[in-house]
Amino acid sequence: MVIDDYGVRTTSPEYPGALTVDKRIGIIGAGTAGLHLGLYLLQHGVDVTILSDRDPDAIRNGQLPNTVAHHAVTIRREQQLGIDHWGVDDHGYVGHEYFVGGPEPLRFRGDYHSPSRAVDYRIYHPRLMEDFVERGGRIEYGQIVHDDVPALGARFDLLAVGTGKGPFGQMFGRLPTDSPFDRPQRALCVGVFQGVEQLDPRSVVWSASPGAGEMIEIPFLTFGGMATALVFENHIGGDLEVLSRTTYDDDPAAFRARILDALRTHYPLTAERVDPSAFDLPHGSRDLVQGGVTPSVRRSHIVLDDGTLAVSLGDVKATVDPVLGQGGNVASHAAWVLGEEIVAQDIFDARFVEQVERKRDDRVLAATRWTNFMLEGLRTMPAEFREALRTIAESPQLADEFTDGFNYPEQQWDRFATPERTAAWLSRGARVAASV
Amino acid sequence: MVIDDYGVRTTSPEYPGALTVDKRIGIIGAGTAGLHLGLYLLQHGVDVTILSDRDPDAIRNGQLPNTVAHHAVTIRREQQLGIDHWGVDDHGYVGHEYFVGGPEPLRFRGDYHSPSRAVDYRIYHPRLMEDFVERGGRIEYGQIVHDDVPALGARFDLLAVGTGKGPFGQMFGRLPTDSPFDRPQRALCVGVFQGVEQLDPRSVVWSASPGAGEMIEIPFLTFGGMATALVFENHIGGDLEVLSRTTYDDDPAAFRARILDALRTHYPLTAERVDPSAFDLPHGSRDLVQGGVTPSVRRSHIVLDDGTLAVSLGDVKATVDPVLGQGGNVASHAAWVLGEEIVAQDIFDARFVEQVERKRDDRVLAATRWTNFMLEGLRTMPAEFREALRTIAESPQLADEFTDGFNYPEQQWDRFATPERTAAWLSRGARVAASV
Repeated sequence: MVIDDYGVRTTSPEYPGALTVDKRIGIIGAGTAGLHLGLYLLQHGVDVTILSDRDPDAIRNGQLPNTVAHHAVTIRREQQLGIDHWGVDDHGYVGHEYFVGGPEPLRFRGDYHSPSRAVDYRIYHPRLMEDFVERGGRIEYGQIVHDDVPALGARFDLLAVGTGKGPFGQMFGRLPTDSPFDRPQRALCVGVFQGVEQLDPRSVVWSASPGAGEMIEIPFLTFGGMATALVFENHIGGDLEVLSRTTYDDDPAAFRARILDALRTHYPLTAERVDPSAFDLPHGSRDLVQGGVTPSVRRSHIVLDDGTLAVSLGDVKATVDPVLGQGGNVASHAAWVLGEEIVAQDIFDARFVEQVERKRDDRVLAATRWTNFMLEGLRTMPAEFREALRTIAESPQLADEFTDGFNYPEQQWDRFATPERTAAWLSRGARVAASV
Repeated sequence: MVIDDYGVRTTSPEYPGALTVDKRIGIIGAGTAGLHLGLYLLQHGVDVTILSDRDPDAIRNGQLPNTVAHHAVTIRREQQLGIDHWGVDDHGYVGHEYFVGGPEPLRFRGDYHSPSRAVDYRIYHPRLMEDFVERGGRIEYGQIVHDDVPALGARFDLLAVGTGKGPFGQMFGRLPTDSPFDRPQRALCVGVFQGVEQLDPRSVVWSASPGAGEMIEIPFLTFGGMATALVFENHIGGDLEVLSRTTYDDDPAAFRARILDALRTHYPLTAERVDPSAFDLPHGSRDLVQGGVTPSVRRSHIVLDDGTLAVSLGDVKATVDPVLGQGGNVASHAAWVLGEEIVAQDIFDARFVEQVERKRDDRVLAATRWTNFMLEGLRTMPAEFREALRTIAESPQLADEFTDGFNYPEQQWDRFATPERTAAWLSRGARVAASV
């Protein structure tokens, strides 16, 4: 076993696969976390089964689930798993254009160290499921009900639960310390649109309209090629909250008109590139998801009656509002860490959970803390928060650090955990600028 | 700033030293932890002052404090700090000879991946203090009393407390969850001896005499060249407990006779290489330390009245019994992690402590848990514990893993945290052996 100075295990050359202790891993849910974990385990010769309630065709023909960006840290994992089928040169984007409205609007941009990319999960998940099966993985389809739990405990040495649907998702209690909200903080209206001209270079447009909401425009690969995801994060009680309840099917033209009006009134950086005659959801209401999520952090593990350990994965461990695009990335990160520990360890017990948490939690908790902090700051827009944004806007160095930080939420939290930390970060950036 | 996929910061190329936020760090105590931290900070351009109650000459001419082995992971840090003055080729040792007495004695050996080395701290600490001063570090000498605390809080942005002496050491409360014992678990008698022939290749001899104690023979560099440290870990209430109370100065010949008798009766692997005519403490009772330590884990931080953060370091954070030679190594590890975080962060607050703990605690806590587990197992010698030792004794692969694990206590704890874990580790080793 190769161990670095911090005791981080890497793949163990002394133990060829045939000598590995047999481990039977069950993954419930074929989302990003479940699939990344499943593919990682297959790659390391571990016996793994995914249980999913829907097959690839049902997912392809189903409803838009969300519009998730994968940042460079996630794309690097995809490359290591051999599932990077959607190159960033053709489908990625290189940074963020920011716009913060109000009496003195702010506009600035920041770039990543390496591009991000957003692919429709109705393309992404089915393709990864097919990769998984082609490489010898098993996927079993069907609904899981409460009575199935004992049999699953008996079949597997460890269960990883990556979906809130069914009996398992409900078993992981919320952790109050890390779950400050008991209801959604934004009324969401998220759709895939045609008729929005892409920026050059391709970039996310991240806009805030104080008092109304935020809107994230994401270059988005869907069935017809590159399109645009618009994520309306509407403040509860604000002018735009109605977008989360405006149905498409009742009156598509009225829906489009309302969205266009919201863009023109609140999000000019995107509005100026819309061709109203082409602007629409390509597949109607299938390309639309509306509602809200309650930000929550849940327990890392439960022990079933027969002693089998079940660990929470993806949204089951941490549900974050999509305003900062952290959900898919922390889900993939947590899956990777879990995969490494499953490969490294033989016994799935309290010590196993301790190791997983120690390697995983800083990023996962920082993503939720930073997202929750920004949700609150953007909603109430205190003077010092706006001033911080202005300082970032005036420093290309800070703007790049802030943008690349979407890869590293633990670093963003280092910067935003307290006003003193924000001031220290901003003043360092300002001094760097002054020294150039 | 360069960040890997887990957000681990490395030295920041974008921020030249001149732009670093000024940080004034005070280190209380010039032990291994304090000196490694001080040298690390100097190397990274951080303003650092060490406060010590004794100068190098007083330490050189003082009492033997202990006999601490530095394992390869610590030597690697010493190399990075440029303080590896005592090369392992001349002064190191390559592994452990084990002997467990009883009706069916066990004898086996295991090797490290890279040598360990033990240098008399009366040589080691003064030399590092001189290195520190030569490189521009400040050391201030004097006793610290309670009334000095506010002034020190005002002088420094962060205090690292590496000595239990004085007012600071008492401020860090014990953590009951990780401190299962309220008194010493062994009656110690530790001396530096001449008249013991070194093994070839040079090795530690690690012996256990069930019901009486353990004895660790360590190749040891002291003022007169290579000598031998004998660490008698005597069971409370056992035949050898008296060694911890047998004074040398009252009757040196009687002391020597009692030690020799203990070796012949309980620790034959060492006894057979003793030349009684030369066997003695070269500097009399100055080369002897007797007593006991209460294994304890203490709080990571306190906040002084003026808001200054003080963090615990070395023995103040975790005091371990010397039976497994973990103290100096976890102290150095913890100092290094603290140094990295001091360099990386500008604000010393709760988030800072959270990061330090996350990077440091697995090794520190595992060292205490594994040591406490072994203290208990060796004292009570249950059948399954002896059986585990027998299995290790029969497998060179397991014996090497166990031995090299002295570098990586978190790995040893992976193996010993539960009987199931021990069984899984042992059976994997047995199957590797069977496949050869």
